[in-house]
Amino acid sequence: MTDFEQKFNELVISESGDAVPVKTVVFKPKTPKSSTPVPIVVIALQSTTTPSALIGSATNSKDPRLARDEFFKEHYNVDSAKDFHLGHVRRYSGTQSILMDKELAALSDESVLKLNDVLYIKKANLVNEYLVPIGATEVDFSKAVEAPKKEKAVASKKQEKAAAVDSKLIGITVNKASDFSGWYQQILTKGEMLDYYDVSGCYILRPASYAIWEQIQRWFDDRIKGLGVQNAYFPMFVSSRVLEKEKDHIEGFAPEVAWVTRAGSSELEEPIAIRPTSETVMYPYYAKWIQSHRDLPIKLNQWNSVVRWEFKHPQPFLRTREFLWQEGHTAHLTKEDAEEEVMQILDFYAGVYEELLAVPVVKGRKTEKEKFAGGDFTTTCEGYIPQTGRGIQGATSHHLGQNFSKMFNISVENPLGSEHPKIFAYQNSWGLSTRVIGVMVMIHSDDKGLVIPPRVSQYQTVVLPLGITAKTSDEQRATIHENARAIESRLKKVGIRAFGDYNDNYTPGWKFSQYELKGIPLRIEIGPKDVEKQQVTCVRRNDGKKIVVSISDLENRIPEILEEMQADLFNKAKELFDTHRVIVDEWEGFVPALNKKNVILSPWCGVEECEEDIKSASAKKDDGEEFEVDDKSPSMGAKSLCIPFKQPTLKPGQKCVKCTRLAQHYCMFGRSY
Amino acid sequence: MTDFEQKFNELVISESGDAVPVKTVVFKPKTPKSSTPVPIVVIALQSTTTPSALIGSATNSKDPRLARDEFFKEHYNVDSAKDFHLGHVRRYSGTQSILMDKELAALSDESVLKLNDVLYIKKANLVNEYLVPIGATEVDFSKAVEAPKKEKAVASKKQEKAAAVDSKLIGITVNKASDFSGWYQQILTKGEMLDYYDVSGCYILRPASYAIWEQIQRWFDDRIKGLGVQNAYFPMFVSSRVLEKEKDHIEGFAPEVAWVTRAGSSELEEPIAIRPTSETVMYPYYAKWIQSHRDLPIKLNQWNSVVRWEFKHPQPFLRTREFLWQEGHTAHLTKEDAEEEVMQILDFYAGVYEELLAVPVVKGRKTEKEKFAGGDFTTTCEGYIPQTGRGIQGATSHHLGQNFSKMFNISVENPLGSEHPKIFAYQNSWGLSTRVIGVMVMIHSDDKGLVIPPRVSQYQTVVLPLGITAKTSDEQRATIHENARAIESRLKKVGIRAFGDYNDNYTPGWKFSQYELKGIPLRIEIGPKDVEKQQVTCVRRNDGKKIVVSISDLENRIPEILEEMQADLFNKAKELFDTHRVIVDEWEGFVPALNKKNVILSPWCGVEECEEDIKSASAKKDDGEEFEVDDKSPSMGAKSLCIPFKQPTLKPGQKCVKCTRLAQHYCMFGRSY
Repeated sequence: MTDFEQKFNELVISESGDAVPVKTVVFKPKTPKSSTPVPIVVIALQSTTTPSALIGSATNSKDPRLARDEFFKEHYNVDSAKDFHLGHVRRYSGTQSILMDKELAALSDESVLKLNDVLYIKKANLVNEYLVPIGATEVDFSKAVEAPKKEKAVASKKQEKAAAVDSKLIGITVNKASDFSGWYQQILTKGEMLDYYDVSGCYILRPASYAIWEQIQRWFDDRIKGLGVQNAYFPMFVSSRVLEKEKDHIEGFAPEVAWVTRAGSSELEEPIAIRPTSETVMYPYYAKWIQSHRDLPIKLNQWNSVVRWEFKHPQPFLRTREFLWQEGHTAHLTKEDAEEEVMQILDFYAGVYEELLAVPVVKGRKTEKEKFAGGDFTTTCEGYIPQTGRGIQGATSHHLGQNFSKMFNISVENPLGSEHPKIFAYQNSWGLSTRVIGVMVMIHSDDKGLVIPPRVSQYQTVVLPLGITAKTSDEQRATIHENARAIESRLKKVGIRAFGDYNDNYTPGWKFSQYELKGIPLRIEIGPKDVEKQQVTCVRRNDGKKIVVSISDLENRIPEILEEMQADLFNKAKELFDTHRVIVDEWEGFVPALNKKNVILSPWCGVEECEEDIKSASAKKDDGEEFEVDDKSPSMGAKSLCIPFKQPTLKPGQKCVKCTRLAQHYCMFGRSY
Repeated sequence: MTDFEQKFNELVISESGDAVPVKTVVFKPKTPKSSTPVPIVVIALQSTTTPSALIGSATNSKDPRLARDEFFKEHYNVDSAKDFHLGHVRRYSGTQSILMDKELAALSDESVLKLNDVLYIKKANLVNEYLVPIGATEVDFSKAVEAPKKEKAVASKKQEKAAAVDSKLIGITVNKASDFSGWYQQILTKGEMLDYYDVSGCYILRPASYAIWEQIQRWFDDRIKGLGVQNAYFPMFVSSRVLEKEKDHIEGFAPEVAWVTRAGSSELEEPIAIRPTSETVMYPYYAKWIQSHRDLPIKLNQWNSVVRWEFKHPQPFLRTREFLWQEGHTAHLTKEDAEEEVMQILDFYAGVYEELLAVPVVKGRKTEKEKFAGGDFTTTCEGYIPQTGRGIQGATSHHLGQNFSKMFNISVENPLGSEHPKIFAYQNSWGLSTRVIGVMVMIHSDDKGLVIPPRVSQYQTVVLPLGITAKTSDEQRATIHENARAIESRLKKVGIRAFGDYNDNYTPGWKFSQYELKGIPLRIEIGPKDVEKQQVTCVRRNDGKKIVVSISDLENRIPEILEEMQADLFNKAKELFDTHRVIVDEWEGFVPALNKKNVILSPWCGVEECEEDIKSASAKKDDGEEFEVDDKSPSMGAKSLCIPFKQPTLKPGQKCVKCTRLAQHYCMFGRSY
């Protein structure tokens, strides 16, 4: 042991108290092979972020990076970073750069430091004996870019206990009714569905939301495979030449396309786009693969993400710059086949909403103005958000006709023989995105947090042992826990997504709030009396209703209760949509109905100019309940949502709600997302 | 009907013969709302690509796009594009731009044109009566960018018949042994697993390969969920600040990062990277989410794509600029927990190779030089490609230690109490990519095409009715077909991925070649005699062995046969790997063994410089059988592949194969991908 190591050991104290955690990190700058790198030692508060870039500029060195064990061996004669301490720094005879955190320097001399979680030392000793003699440079790391800020949250037992006292602090602090936007953000983040990300318009899908997406994927994927659709994967990149091939189609996307122009430090010869959708990515290959009418139909689907760099205000799930979806692209020999599929897919989309997400939708056709650019017609299912009274497009299934097949030359010889005209394929495309999750959350959730329909929720039920107090004997406690665990295990065996929370450090009240916040559909409670009676008490998340179930009947009753909840959620949402979808035949009733948070069914002439008139004429009277700030529609007018397939009967000679032309059909109008 | 329409109708002829298909397409340029757009009519050969950009420059108009039906109504008084013909163009009194394909102009005057698949007209009449009077401009569309070229392929019945005569024409035209690289490309594209894409280094995964990926996903996903791993989705974008936070880690990726610098027509304030891997994407959020030791472990996985813009020669599946993978990222309270998981995951990876893909692998640890930068150690499973004698890294599972957790401050209070030092999480990351499919293809496939192990292949068996000739009665034919369909249906019912080919237009020989090319594991043939005897003849793709199975025994026997094939494929590959993994203790035997297409187990000192010496000393003697041209390794030396967990016994005092130091262990070396 050298003098310096000896000395270091003498300074080490055993006191711990309120020691301030300090880290010692060694960096190696990038140097040519021929020269020896100068070690950079950073001594900083553990809480201080010490990014390489700042370290590089402070030491005037290139690309400093965390030293590996070899580097420690070479320079400090220790086996690894773990064995390294300041004694080694002091001893080192070569050139070193030493950086000291300004915040560390600012501590009082008497502060006790906890070095790398192991050794304790007084701040004055550290600085005077180690840092001053070797010439440490003070660095203000606070200039560094911050990692996402840690939220105030449960960090220690003490804090947990405190939190349990008032669980509302970590719950939702705003009302759905009074601040819908703030409420939406809070339930998503506090309910741990989603987190905000440091690239604007992008969000993290945490397991609670991704699991819902997985349920949807499985359900929908099974069904389309039943139609003969196959999954594939096409690249996310599109060359600008190909992207711009179908102008009519791409016009809608061009302002939102993200362009890659550089790889590493090389500029690309030509910028490459990230797909906003894959029509132009895929169809040149359809043209290549489809040679004979026997190659038709071709039915491909992909589960991927697409990028639309919108500059409007982003909204989690509803409007995001990258989102997950599926996009199906099919080509058929006949228009009839293609059209049949368009409707089958639309039914599946409605099924995702109604059967899985308990969200009622109205199926219909988009107007010419609102249809998919470049297609023949667009079918859609449209939802409704009661709080804002706005409609929301659910998912769309397009018939593209022969527009793309002519553009990309997707054609086959006529099956009747080559003397008959060549046939251009009839194409469809259809897509459903993670937007569905946002719609579901907006509709069912409440002031306590998320409400998730049991069919899609990551977990369907939580089993909670209750009634354990200071007086409970160890034996009683064990019996309750045993019963609870047996229940969890039996439910899992019959395919219920169950988990138990057997942690005694949290109060039942705290747990109730947590699982209500996260939207676990069913809480199964078991206390001492339940054990005696061999029963459990189930509490439904959606309405708080309690149901006592005999333990012997669990496997039958729990799935039933979950299905009842699913149905109740749907029926409640359906009633709200049904009562807020009103028929208005005369214009004078239109805006007042709209302002009462309705969507409106009105007789309509089908003329695009009239559609625009309706929008602008209904725009001025904003009721101040806008959900989001949207520059392009500060006082939003009613758009056409769809021409519903289920039509009220038009009276003979019925005029358009807005103009003097004859009505063609009823059209659903509304403010919308 | 106007004169012009009348006139047009008169010119229309009924002759069809060798008519040249011609299209008439109408474009609308982008114009301010206040002015009327000038229609652009393009008359071109159907085979000519007519991109908007060229049309725009030829007419000096902005963003021309395909006209919608409204536009036809407004300008030509027809309901839709479908009703539109040149008579309408001639009649139109406003300004129009008419563009004529140069290739059309070049046709002889007597050529008969087929207009929009409907009307026939002589070329001279069209030009003189319609195009000349209204002043058509000739345009050379051949300057336009080509759509991917159509391969010569089966396009009509006649051609199909011709193709059937020599099915080898559409089969693989090179040998695996003599042109491995050409063979690999052909089996992938002709076997319809993959197609080349117009962005270099990116490939299309067609259903045959994506279905294999889905099988792997299901298998692996079930297993990691069993370990408590949850799926999530993090954005594909990373800000440069965050990406560069862990320099040591990112150094390996920086030269390959693709940067988005523009969205629509706006330059981004800061370029944004596309993830090459997600450590730096995810870990700032781990730091935020992990507040208490009760938040540990956190185990997240994502199925996504990543981009590494490599400038080396790309290889389908093996080295691609975008690839699909899963990346697992976990954080644990203790090193033991983390390390246990590293090994569990590695076992799953070996399971994907050995149990699903029938590819034998060697498990081991990477050397310090080859480990994941920024991690503590890397475990790997390594495969072997017999044709090239090269090793190939299969999948890696890394223990990151506390390197990232210290950098990102992923830490918790000590569970022993706040008076004990804070604990930085112990982290792992692990990934398996679509590269596995390439390895599988290289190992099992042969000169007839793909050979796919039954457990992962999209279809496991094709049912073929045989022995139907001109003499076969309709009744006999029907009986054979009925039997075949019943077999298909019975196999599907027991979960076999079966399909039938009941098309009588192709010869059995043609079908055999097709399904051998595509690697359908088992062909089930049923002919008249089979029907009599109530049996089928099964032919194994991997070795052509025939097995007669009684129809009554199908449900038992077919799954057995598939499992036997799976085992045989694995055993054959394992024998090749085992016999080409040789122990070499002395350096003089090293390069000769390498040149015999072996990978080598040698005693090794564990020193990085020695590893580099071995590589350079084994580099010169290239045997000319390089699979790919790779600038960085024109005469590739042997790299360390791994230090296998299963070790030969080191003799006492055993020296390193290359230097004079004592050997630490046996290390596996080889030329590699």
